[in-house]
Amino acid sequence: MPELRQNRFTKEWVIMSTERAKRPEDLRVQHDPRPPLPAYSEKCPFCPGNERLAPPAVMAIPADGKWEVRIVPNKFAALSREGEPWRKIERSRRSLNGVGIHEVIVETPNHALTTALLPVENVAEILRAYQQRFTEISADPRITHVTIFKNHGAAAGTSLEHPHSQLIGTPVISSQVRNRVYEALRHYDEFGECIFCEAIKEDLASPARVVVTTQHFFAVEPFASSTPFATYIYPRRHMASFGAISDAEIVDLAKVLKTVLAKLYVGLQNPDFNYTIRTAPHENAGVLYYHWYLSVIPRLTRVAGFELGSGMFINTVLPEAAAEFLRNVKVDLAAAAD
Amino acid sequence: MPELRQNRFTKEWVIMSTERAKRPEDLRVQHDPRPPLPAYSEKCPFCPGNERLAPPAVMAIPADGKWEVRIVPNKFAALSREGEPWRKIERSRRSLNGVGIHEVIVETPNHALTTALLPVENVAEILRAYQQRFTEISADPRITHVTIFKNHGAAAGTSLEHPHSQLIGTPVISSQVRNRVYEALRHYDEFGECIFCEAIKEDLASPARVVVTTQHFFAVEPFASSTPFATYIYPRRHMASFGAISDAEIVDLAKVLKTVLAKLYVGLQNPDFNYTIRTAPHENAGVLYYHWYLSVIPRLTRVAGFELGSGMFINTVLPEAAAEFLRNVKVDLAAAAD
Repeated sequence: MPELRQNRFTKEWVIMSTERAKRPEDLRVQHDPRPPLPAYSEKCPFCPGNERLAPPAVMAIPADGKWEVRIVPNKFAALSREGEPWRKIERSRRSLNGVGIHEVIVETPNHALTTALLPVENVAEILRAYQQRFTEISADPRITHVTIFKNHGAAAGTSLEHPHSQLIGTPVISSQVRNRVYEALRHYDEFGECIFCEAIKEDLASPARVVVTTQHFFAVEPFASSTPFATYIYPRRHMASFGAISDAEIVDLAKVLKTVLAKLYVGLQNPDFNYTIRTAPHENAGVLYYHWYLSVIPRLTRVAGFELGSGMFINTVLPEAAAEFLRNVKVDLAAAAD
Repeated sequence: MPELRQNRFTKEWVIMSTERAKRPEDLRVQHDPRPPLPAYSEKCPFCPGNERLAPPAVMAIPADGKWEVRIVPNKFAALSREGEPWRKIERSRRSLNGVGIHEVIVETPNHALTTALLPVENVAEILRAYQQRFTEISADPRITHVTIFKNHGAAAGTSLEHPHSQLIGTPVISSQVRNRVYEALRHYDEFGECIFCEAIKEDLASPARVVVTTQHFFAVEPFASSTPFATYIYPRRHMASFGAISDAEIVDLAKVLKTVLAKLYVGLQNPDFNYTIRTAPHENAGVLYYHWYLSVIPRLTRVAGFELGSGMFINTVLPEAAAEFLRNVKVDLAAAAD
């Protein structure tokens, strides 16, 4: 018998269709072994020596000399860096001119080193770059929300090979973010606790869906996972905003993120994926009711008409089975998992 | 300068990124001319003569003799037809056993005739079959919402060639549907009118985004369209539920639906697409504040990390440009457009 499960953070229902269930390993990407990428590509705008092919950097780590991580404006930015946002209200139509910040985080000088293969220290540098730019852009009075995300592979929306992620600072907050914040606020109002902190406590107490735990973070397949192998990485400490992460936590998050991505890379044969940092808007940075997390979404299946039309997803892999599968994938990162 | 537009029905913001804008014709599907499909395929479970390959029909038009439209239970149903739904509340986890109705509407005996190529009378028969099953399933006390949808092509989630659509009756209403109903109710509460009726009046008065109008329906590229060429078909008369459609309206909707799909077929070279009937849940069938419509979503682009993580979409084709492009695509259906 299939089962419907409710995502408690969004109130969305998900159909867990166990009748048509696939074994987790059936979702492994079917392709010929790809030739490894070269460490340098002549035409790549993100390889060292080719910096002239991208706009000038807005920051680099280290700030001088040979960079390890580099942030540049997106050459094909979705929003314009210049100008002031102004609203236009014309009868029922609401619009805003497209002011915002759209940048690319070049994650490593090495063209070949996707996150799953990158040393943990370098992953930590990427996260430090995220935090620094997140904080800087949050201080821009035109920007009300910053989304940090990564697209890996064509199915996830990128054709650029060089390891990179992006951030977009927008002058509005999407209703999807607002709805999560609002549901969390309602929960707090009723129960006096952060809905995420409560879920974290329950997940750690009965860890069937937990993939990896460390001192400051843990990774879990959510109870009402919409898609196979969706994995959330939560800080154990209550923090509404990603901006509040400490450096010790960054080092720990780097281990967990690399572990999760390496398990997917090895276990499912380098699937395309997206990840996003889902933080409170910075106007809500200090609130007691919201809790930021990082969601990793492997792109193993297609969204079809039912999902588009109803907002309900059909998931063919139980999160408990996905978690067990991922726990059993061994990755060479002894320090990361405990 | 890009522009942000708010979808008034969901309050979602969409980034219209005109800087990176594509001309509508650049989204035309790039592929070699596909060989036409055969009218009959030996292994197809939906071709006449192969009925034994699918579960027994639950209805057919005509009811006896050679069928034109046929509805069968989905052999790989996401939900189970038998049993009673019961809730399980275990600490913070909410679930329901997976009872529901999942059926396939075989749209025509002819393996080759996708909707864009099908005679209008046959499209009307498909819509009649939708309405009949919608009404029957809505009467099942276990079912609270019925979603009718079509997946055309691999990018839209199907590999089955034979023209077909599906319906899923669920024992819950997704929060996406609930949110639309709730926003419409709030609008009614404030302004005393259906938010959709108001939008319809405005769109028809300044028709830059209108694709086709007929006596009872019209098709429009929505103001805050999330993706290129998303097209909504609205009944001009106020109706919350698809179940309330009259037969004269069905005949007219068949013309508009075929016109829109034929324009996409010709103009963009047979793109993959989904369509869905977005109706009020039948418990809200008579309400003054909601209005059903049919949304057609061509699958021309990929959802990436920003969309997944923020809920905000980046659309590279302005709906005004898409509408102009589609208006100029001539299709051989003189009776359909006026």
